[in-house]
Amino acid sequence: MKIAGRPCRTIWTRPDESVEVIDQTRLPHEFTTLVLRTPEDCADAIRRMVVRGAPLIGATAAYGVAFAMKREPSSAALIRALDLLQATRPTAVNLRWALKRMHDALHNRGHGDRFQIAWAEAAAICEEDVEICRMIGVHGLALLRDLHARKQRTLNVLTHCNAGWLACVDWGTATSPIYQAHDAGIPLHVWVDETRPRNQGASLTAFELGAHGVAHTIVADNAGGHLMQAGRVDVCIVGVDRVTRNGDFANKIGTYLKALAAVDNGVPFYGAVPSPSIDWTLKDGSTIPIEERSADEILKMTGRLAGGGVATVEIAAPGSPAANPGFDVTPARLATGFITERGVCPASEAGLLGLFPERK
Amino acid sequence: MKIAGRPCRTIWTRPDESVEVIDQTRLPHEFTTLVLRTPEDCADAIRRMVVRGAPLIGATAAYGVAFAMKREPSSAALIRALDLLQATRPTAVNLRWALKRMHDALHNRGHGDRFQIAWAEAAAICEEDVEICRMIGVHGLALLRDLHARKQRTLNVLTHCNAGWLACVDWGTATSPIYQAHDAGIPLHVWVDETRPRNQGASLTAFELGAHGVAHTIVADNAGGHLMQAGRVDVCIVGVDRVTRNGDFANKIGTYLKALAAVDNGVPFYGAVPSPSIDWTLKDGSTIPIEERSADEILKMTGRLAGGGVATVEIAAPGSPAANPGFDVTPARLATGFITERGVCPASEAGLLGLFPERK
Repeated sequence: MKIAGRPCRTIWTRPDESVEVIDQTRLPHEFTTLVLRTPEDCADAIRRMVVRGAPLIGATAAYGVAFAMKREPSSAALIRALDLLQATRPTAVNLRWALKRMHDALHNRGHGDRFQIAWAEAAAICEEDVEICRMIGVHGLALLRDLHARKQRTLNVLTHCNAGWLACVDWGTATSPIYQAHDAGIPLHVWVDETRPRNQGASLTAFELGAHGVAHTIVADNAGGHLMQAGRVDVCIVGVDRVTRNGDFANKIGTYLKALAAVDNGVPFYGAVPSPSIDWTLKDGSTIPIEERSADEILKMTGRLAGGGVATVEIAAPGSPAANPGFDVTPARLATGFITERGVCPASEAGLLGLFPERK
Repeated sequence: MKIAGRPCRTIWTRPDESVEVIDQTRLPHEFTTLVLRTPEDCADAIRRMVVRGAPLIGATAAYGVAFAMKREPSSAALIRALDLLQATRPTAVNLRWALKRMHDALHNRGHGDRFQIAWAEAAAICEEDVEICRMIGVHGLALLRDLHARKQRTLNVLTHCNAGWLACVDWGTATSPIYQAHDAGIPLHVWVDETRPRNQGASLTAFELGAHGVAHTIVADNAGGHLMQAGRVDVCIVGVDRVTRNGDFANKIGTYLKALAAVDNGVPFYGAVPSPSIDWTLKDGSTIPIEERSADEILKMTGRLAGGGVATVEIAAPGSPAANPGFDVTPARLATGFITERGVCPASEAGLLGLFPERK
């Protein structure tokens, strides 16, 4: 997608065999990039959410493995890198998927070839992600086109967190249908949940929608239920961090509340699901580990000062503790369906297997 | 309740016939007070949320009418003051109730008596509010005592926004059962929704619970559903801004989402309802006007800088617009019941009329 008119991805290679990423902790206040050269750089970027979003985490981890192979192409170094990178974000199945793929591509290859193989495999992961996101958009566009044909007015889409192109390599997952509908001339407006505590909606989704020219309005996470009660939301499209075999799915904390409101108000609720985010090994959502993140994300907020510069302020009552679960699990029964790169399906084991019969 | 060991109310009279209030826009960063001397001072304090919470708004408005009568005890001035004060917060039925009460006490009295009558009536409104809140706590304590007898462990109570003593004259509504249970030695812990966009939970509820020594943890508004799924919430108690005849109720934006999650997880969900917040003239919640507040509340955040001082930062993507509905309506069907000063009842017309038969 574009920033200030220039095509941009979230991660790209450099001639010196390093990679460069957008530093998403600085957005939307500053647009800066960061060069990653080691597996530790990559692990740190994932842990600090310099890069975030399941697909981009997977791509960054893949390059982390490549950097490990460049430094020391031994099997011990490979295992160490896989362990280091896996530990950064336990909820993200895509991370595990990318690391397993790197492992499978490398473990029985000669040491002398390992770096080149790893580098090519990481690039392939990136290209495949772009194509997956593009196809999610193609299938989601058909849904939005149908909805617009019925409503005959500007469509209001609600999204939570940032499952946008900034979370992927390009296009985004939940935003891909939005961008493609916008580009196809379907009039739409996006309600952007600000998504506390890290405000990825207000800072990242609003930023990228604005940069692409899509009409949008930021709302507090608390507002979505009221907007749905008032008939001001036509469809919800959210990303997913991990889908289990039965269609339960983990996503950013608060997704479950929006799904409840969607059901209560008859609003269709879709998860945008790239197939690497499906965890076929988990029967249901009850066993998904939920990451507990730092209390500082609740107690502090970063923004631009009126006089220029960026500052962090403490917003809560001094001395009060905070808890910060990063994700929740939305039961499959609450979702209308999933938009995958192979098409749209019900949020159920039968629905998923209908599109991915090889997993039966 | 107490601050730094000293008993404190949210509004009190001064020897010079002015009133003094805690400036709640400065909390929790600074504890300062403000003196109000005119109806305009009172209207401004209500509009800027120097005072907030249905009962405290009513009490402040009552003193606003008294100040108007001090300046000019004519019927025209009375009408002007009532109109000025009513326009400050259209959703708050308690405000209308207090103003009607002042009108009824004053409109056919001699001009020479009007200030003294108004001053006494405003004081009576304050004292009655304290007693109403105390009795909500007595009835809520019985509920919590029962729950504790069944669970035999620390009770986890979730609350949204600030329906605490800072929202009232003393005790609070939703917090009164909490304070009384704490004082009675029932072990409890409160999950405090931060309550975006104004963060009344993180700033005010956390502040007052901390000052009274009640264990509590601040969470993002997004987290409550997950906590309930995980069995970590035993009961929700929230305030109400306005209850309609059938038991629907308006409260701070986001209350509806928590009620949905409570029902989905079998967690009891109570509204703490002082009777002046019941609007017997409205059949159901569909006609409650919802206040649209400033976008700045979404786009900016105020807090303490690490080096000292308080600053406001812009947190969202530059140029992105925001919408800010202040309240939502929770349908009666989602609530377990109401805790009123006369006892606990189902959230229904029959339930309310059982406790307030004079309204039949």
